[in-house]
Amino acid sequence: MKTDLEKKKLNFHEHVVNLQQQITNELLKIDPTIKLVEDRWERLDHDGKNGGGGITRAFTGELIENAGVNTSMVFGSVDPNFALKLGGTGNTMWAEGISLIIHPKNPRVPTVHANFRMIEAGEKFWFGGGADLTPFYPHVEDFEYFHKIWRDALTPYGHYEEMKKTCDQYFMNTHRSNEMRGIGGFFFDHFNTNHLENDIEMVKNLSSYFIDSYFPIVKKRKDEAYDLEDEDFQLHRRGRYVEFNLLHDRGTMFGLKTNGRVDSILISLPARAKFTYKYAPKPGSPHEKMMEFYHPRDWN
Amino acid sequence: MKTDLEKKKLNFHEHVVNLQQQITNELLKIDPTIKLVEDRWERLDHDGKNGGGGITRAFTGELIENAGVNTSMVFGSVDPNFALKLGGTGNTMWAEGISLIIHPKNPRVPTVHANFRMIEAGEKFWFGGGADLTPFYPHVEDFEYFHKIWRDALTPYGHYEEMKKTCDQYFMNTHRSNEMRGIGGFFFDHFNTNHLENDIEMVKNLSSYFIDSYFPIVKKRKDEAYDLEDEDFQLHRRGRYVEFNLLHDRGTMFGLKTNGRVDSILISLPARAKFTYKYAPKPGSPHEKMMEFYHPRDWN
Repeated sequence: MKTDLEKKKLNFHEHVVNLQQQITNELLKIDPTIKLVEDRWERLDHDGKNGGGGITRAFTGELIENAGVNTSMVFGSVDPNFALKLGGTGNTMWAEGISLIIHPKNPRVPTVHANFRMIEAGEKFWFGGGADLTPFYPHVEDFEYFHKIWRDALTPYGHYEEMKKTCDQYFMNTHRSNEMRGIGGFFFDHFNTNHLENDIEMVKNLSSYFIDSYFPIVKKRKDEAYDLEDEDFQLHRRGRYVEFNLLHDRGTMFGLKTNGRVDSILISLPARAKFTYKYAPKPGSPHEKMMEFYHPRDWN
Repeated sequence: MKTDLEKKKLNFHEHVVNLQQQITNELLKIDPTIKLVEDRWERLDHDGKNGGGGITRAFTGELIENAGVNTSMVFGSVDPNFALKLGGTGNTMWAEGISLIIHPKNPRVPTVHANFRMIEAGEKFWFGGGADLTPFYPHVEDFEYFHKIWRDALTPYGHYEEMKKTCDQYFMNTHRSNEMRGIGGFFFDHFNTNHLENDIEMVKNLSSYFIDSYFPIVKKRKDEAYDLEDEDFQLHRRGRYVEFNLLHDRGTMFGLKTNGRVDSILISLPARAKFTYKYAPKPGSPHEKMMEFYHPRDWN
């Protein structure tokens, strides 16, 4: 017999695995050239106290240069300092979630990242997640579209302003004069109303908006012509993406510290990136214009 | 009148600036297509207690895809936790040194990194530095050459074994099953014999071997033909280089934490890099062979 708690966890598990499949289907549909590699992995320490498993799906194609849509569950003991960062109760944790990143080749199509996860530490539960867009061309209507979807999704819960702001502040290259990785979206961490069932329902509901927040933009832009300058700008912004993920991202740190599967964690990095001393886009170019959007602004 | 201590610091300063010029000359000589950007920078907080300055030189050319040869001096107060990492005396520090990285375009020519620095914290002084090679093609005689130069330089001081081992352990992607960034060289940190003058002379002497350890290899390999597979392997290894520098490198962390000049610090990143899920070189290729060398071994 499953306990009530086990049933809730299973319910969340089934949701993330279903969502992974739906997003997989969207990717295969929009880029028929995609090659998909699926790795089902499991890990267990010799004493059975630390371990986990997951389904990693890596996509490469002509439109989708690289993407990863992963689900995973990890559990085990954590060192006390790290436990403190996680929320402080005890030195064991369990976490399950979906994490995805999509890096299109065409610089006119934005990169996107999203994740939704449930975490248990001692007797505490909380949730983290969000979605954020990283465009490389100032298609402002696309940015408005993305933000509107999430505003509509979050407003009924009363969390839009707060989670939008958290996202702006989180995905920030603080070492680059507070330049954002992209144009934001929404983000939450340590979320918990002390009503587990409601919280699970909210996170499940939010995550179900992801496909509609992103794929219509891909459809609209995927055949747009681009030039070498567009690509050069994109590759340099991908360089900043790499800087953020390796210097600042808590998800990456969490994965590496909990002895996660390295290839699944670093699937978030773009296939190609450039780094140039004092890089700046051409004055007067659309790319210089794009730079203005990598700072927090009101999208209402 | 300068104190004896001020004279010693000035002596070290003059040495690193001269060495910067000598290495600059070597680069300009070996790649006449080089464009050199020099930035002389200075920084001072409003209260005059934190600051620094330096000369950053950024090179781009047909042979030398990107390189940075920088000197800098920084001083100021540091937060207590960070001071502890630096050695523990007081909460102020001063540091001067040279740091360089050379990323050739031709994958048959190795990437190299070196740095030499003097640090003062409270009344304590110590030194850090070293040189390490990151080749992408199994030219074993080059590896033997590089290691022999440093063995010959270090043996009179009795530090070869120890500093060679420290280098193997330091430049390690611990998150990649302890794969080294390159093939090592030598590395030292917190070095101090309590005889400041001798220590300065040793570090000056060691650093003067750098040109001979690297440029003969460049001359020998710079016109060697290469193919797309060589380049693809190089770009993926550069990806690992980026991972090391952003996830593990203390120099990068020190620079970012002491509010250093970001562009000068991240000049260490390669112009281009690739990241591929579960990347592995072709079975039976020279690149697969090369992988064997990214683990500690005896070069005597």
